[in-house]
Amino acid sequence: MGIPLHGYPAPEGKPVYGSDGRRIIYDENGKPCRTCNTLKNFRMATAKETTGEKTQSSHANKALAASAIAGVSATTDKELAPDGYPKDCPADVEELGRSTWTFLHTVAATYPESATEQQQKEMKAFLETFSKIYPCWFCAKGFRKYIKANEPKVMTQDEFGRWLCDAHNAVNKKLGKPHFDCNLWKKRWKDGWGDGKCD
Amino acid sequence: MGIPLHGYPAPEGKPVYGSDGRRIIYDENGKPCRTCNTLKNFRMATAKETTGEKTQSSHANKALAASAIAGVSATTDKELAPDGYPKDCPADVEELGRSTWTFLHTVAATYPESATEQQQKEMKAFLETFSKIYPCWFCAKGFRKYIKANEPKVMTQDEFGRWLCDAHNAVNKKLGKPHFDCNLWKKRWKDGWGDGKCD
Repeated sequence: MGIPLHGYPAPEGKPVYGSDGRRIIYDENGKPCRTCNTLKNFRMATAKETTGEKTQSSHANKALAASAIAGVSATTDKELAPDGYPKDCPADVEELGRSTWTFLHTVAATYPESATEQQQKEMKAFLETFSKIYPCWFCAKGFRKYIKANEPKVMTQDEFGRWLCDAHNAVNKKLGKPHFDCNLWKKRWKDGWGDGKCD
Repeated sequence: MGIPLHGYPAPEGKPVYGSDGRRIIYDENGKPCRTCNTLKNFRMATAKETTGEKTQSSHANKALAASAIAGVSATTDKELAPDGYPKDCPADVEELGRSTWTFLHTVAATYPESATEQQQKEMKAFLETFSKIYPCWFCAKGFRKYIKANEPKVMTQDEFGRWLCDAHNAVNKKLGKPHFDCNLWKKRWKDGWGDGKCD
């Protein structure tokens, strides 16, 4: 599709990498993509933050320190997300990813144990469209490539749950995140761990 | 579709309402639906918790108290979600809802400003399938009813973003949650608030 492997080149004077080492994704028009980057890296690329000045934790810590001085909750003004930014900021690539995987794995958890032809066809069409409309175009491109090489398996719930778990692991690998043992997908997303804490 | 307005009746001896006042949703087979209830109410209905014994906060507080005694972080064993349960529990109706709205509103935020016929058709088909596969069958039923009465508006990004915001407000109303001013949908889900905190 003519899009470079790591998105479009960084415009002159704009950073190629964020301070966390992740490549910053730019749109065709040279603007950083909000839904393809962490909020911190997006802000770096829009020159709202400079490298290293505000790390995510120091951002949160400053708020905490300020609130400790003032003797009030850090969340009085704006409740903060784990990344230290207000919770009501538009979703960045991390929040979007986390949310969407939660949605998708839970879809698998309630998918029919044995799906009809019609249900299989619908799920395939759904994943096909999903791969086109996913808000991080850069991630969507990766997902289209993945489903082209690994056709979605949707005959049974277990098959679909494992296929999705494998797809998630492929992304984890790209991002240097830990591998998840897909034998455990049902405990994680459907039934709980059998330790009496979720079930 | 023959399903009662509030799901199937509670089986004999099972609670009708959770301790938070929300009706507990049971499946056709009389089992409480994991993805249709909060985890606390699900556990109440499976007799893992009794009314009022473990409130969400006391659950978290006990863990904190225990960790304070042991002098270790409460999250050493299992990191806790805001509801006081381990973060790696299968998503309950609240986490599923939050995650899915984040996904959907962000889809709207990156939807074409003026969509082609093909893109409109695809988005309508996507929403149609979405309304069938959403993991909380009880919520899915409500969404199918909503889109039947309020045809998705997908000609432009703004139109779609507002339609989705209205749909979200319809759910907020049912759940007694605050109404969101849909004139602000782009600030919340696309551009940030213009106060320099997200943008």
